[in-house]
Amino acid sequence: MSKLTTEDYVQGVLAGNRMLLARAITLIESNAPHHFEQAQELLAQLLPHTGQSIRVGITGVPGAGKSTLIETLGLKLVQAGHKVAVLAVDPTSSISKGSILGDKTRMEMLTREERAFVRPSPTGGMLGGVARKTRESILVCEAAGYDVILVETVGTGQSEITVRSMVDFFLLLLVPGAGDELQGIKKGVVEIADAILINKADGENKVRAEAARAEYNRALHYLTPTSENWRPRAYTTSALEDEGIGKLWQLIESFREKMLASGGWQARREEQRQAWLHTIIAEQLQQDFYAQLAVHDALPGLETAVRQGTLPPTAAARQLLQIYQNERRS
Amino acid sequence: MSKLTTEDYVQGVLAGNRMLLARAITLIESNAPHHFEQAQELLAQLLPHTGQSIRVGITGVPGAGKSTLIETLGLKLVQAGHKVAVLAVDPTSSISKGSILGDKTRMEMLTREERAFVRPSPTGGMLGGVARKTRESILVCEAAGYDVILVETVGTGQSEITVRSMVDFFLLLLVPGAGDELQGIKKGVVEIADAILINKADGENKVRAEAARAEYNRALHYLTPTSENWRPRAYTTSALEDEGIGKLWQLIESFREKMLASGGWQARREEQRQAWLHTIIAEQLQQDFYAQLAVHDALPGLETAVRQGTLPPTAAARQLLQIYQNERRS
Repeated sequence: MSKLTTEDYVQGVLAGNRMLLARAITLIESNAPHHFEQAQELLAQLLPHTGQSIRVGITGVPGAGKSTLIETLGLKLVQAGHKVAVLAVDPTSSISKGSILGDKTRMEMLTREERAFVRPSPTGGMLGGVARKTRESILVCEAAGYDVILVETVGTGQSEITVRSMVDFFLLLLVPGAGDELQGIKKGVVEIADAILINKADGENKVRAEAARAEYNRALHYLTPTSENWRPRAYTTSALEDEGIGKLWQLIESFREKMLASGGWQARREEQRQAWLHTIIAEQLQQDFYAQLAVHDALPGLETAVRQGTLPPTAAARQLLQIYQNERRS
Repeated sequence: MSKLTTEDYVQGVLAGNRMLLARAITLIESNAPHHFEQAQELLAQLLPHTGQSIRVGITGVPGAGKSTLIETLGLKLVQAGHKVAVLAVDPTSSISKGSILGDKTRMEMLTREERAFVRPSPTGGMLGGVARKTRESILVCEAAGYDVILVETVGTGQSEITVRSMVDFFLLLLVPGAGDELQGIKKGVVEIADAILINKADGENKVRAEAARAEYNRALHYLTPTSENWRPRAYTTSALEDEGIGKLWQLIESFREKMLASGGWQARREEQRQAWLHTIIAEQLQQDFYAQLAVHDALPGLETAVRQGTLPPTAAARQLLQIYQNERRS
C-alpha cells in the first residue's frame, strides 16, 4: 500500500470510497504509535460528519443465527435505500482466529452489495483496545455515509456490555432450546437488551419459540427497563424464512422515534461519549501502572500474601503505589 | 478519649473487649492520615486471628424488614452460643444522616446482648471508602471472636455489588407487593443473591408471598448460579412471627458446608481479597489523577467537547493524561 496522507483518507471516506474506508479502518486498527497519531488526526477531521446513523448491537450464542439475521436485515435495508455497515467486536478472535465475521463465505450476498460494508473484528489486543477500534470505526463508517451500523458480538458477558455502551439499540438473539434457552448467555445480558428475539421460529420450532417468548416476557417483567421510555420485550423471528425481520426494523425505528422525541436518544449518546472518555483514562492509568517494571516484579509476591490472608490488601496496595511513585520520580 | 497504643488495641480486641473493639473500628473509620497508619499496623497484627466467621450480606428496599430480620436472626444465634456482629454499608448515610442502623431504637434487644456487637454505617466519604472501612471492620470483629458477621446494605445497586464482594453469603430481602415486587431493586441485584427471602409472609400476605416466591424461582431459573455448587432459590419468611428464620440459618449453614467441601468457600475468599487489592489500586490511581489541579481545571471543557461530539474521547483522554504526566514531572 502506498502511503496516504490524512487528507487522502478524509476525501476518500467523505466521498464514500469503500476501499479508502477499509484502509482508514485499518489505520485505526493499527497498533503502531505513528498510525495512532494519524488516526486521531483523521478522526478529528471526520467528526463533524458523524453521528447521523442508527447504531444497532446484536449478540447471541454461536448458532443463534446472528449472521443470517444480519445478512437478511442488511439486504432488506439496502434494498430500501439505506447504506449498511457491519462491524464486529469479538474479544476471542485473537485466539480462535476470527470466530465471527472472519469466515469469508459468511454474509456473501451482503458483502457483494454496493451499499453495504462488512468488516471482520479487529484482531489482537484486549477487549478495551478492540472496543476503542470499533467505536472509532463506527464514526468513520458514518462519515462515509452509512446510516445503519450493525455491530455483532458474541455472548461472553463483558463484550456485550462494551458493545451496549457504543450502540443506540441492543438486540439479544436466542434460539428456542430444550430447557434453559439462556445456556451460554452470561449474567446481565438479558438486562441490557432493548429487545430479545427468539430466532429460528420456523417449522416444528414455532411452538417452542412461542413458549420461550412468553417466558422471556415474564423474566423481562422483573428487570428495570433500559430506558424510561422503552419497555424491552421478547419477539419471535425466523431469519431463514425472512419472517419477522421487517417487524424487527419497524421496532428499531419506533424505538428511535420514541427516544428522539423524549430526548433520550441524544442523552444516551452524550453519556456514552463521556463514559468512554473516563473508561479510556481509567484503562490507561492502570496500564501504565501494571506495565512499570518495579510494580510488575513486586506484584506476584504481594498478591500471594493477599490471597493467603497474610497481608491486608490496603497495605499491599500502598506498597505497590509507593513503588510506582518512586519509580516515576527516578 | 486517651490515646491508645496499637498494642492496647490488639490486646483489647483479642480479649473480646467491646469498648476497645468499638474504638478500634473508630480508628479504622478515621480519615486522618496518622490514624490510617496506626489502623494498618493494627490490622496487620490482627490478621492471623481473622477469617473464621461466616460473613452474611443482607440487602433489601427500605421497609422490607431488614432490621427486624437481623435482630430476630441475631438473637437466635446469640442464644445458640454464637457471637454476632452487625455492620452496615450505606453510601447514602452521609446525606440522610444515617438511614440504616443509625436509629438507636432499632435492634434494641440485640444491642443489649453481651454476645452481640451492632455498629452503624461509617459516615462520610465515597462508597469505596465506606467499603474499605467495612471490610476492615469485619476483620477486627473476627479477631474479637465474632463468628457471625451480618452486613446490612440498602438497594442502591452499586452498594450491593460492593457488599457482595466482601461476604460469603448474600441475601436479598423482598416483600410481596402489588404487581412488581422488584420495584426499587436495582438491576443485577437478583443475579448476585445466594438466596431471595420474601419477607412479611404473615397474615393475609401469605398467599401473595407464596405467589411471589414461585415467580422469583422462575426468574432465578434464567440466571447463571452464583457458584457452581449452589443454586439460589426464593423462600418465604416472616421476621415478625419468627417463621422461617431458623430455616434461613439452616440454609446458610448448608451453603457453608457445600462450599467448604467443594473448595468454593476458600476460593471465593481468595478471589475477593485479590479483587479488593486491584480495586484499591484502580481507585487510588483515579483519585490521584482527578485530584490533580491541572487535570481538574482542564476536565470540564474537554468533557463538554466530548459530550457534544466535537472532540473524540480518545483525543480528550490523551490531552488529560498528558497534562497529568507533565504536572507530575514538574
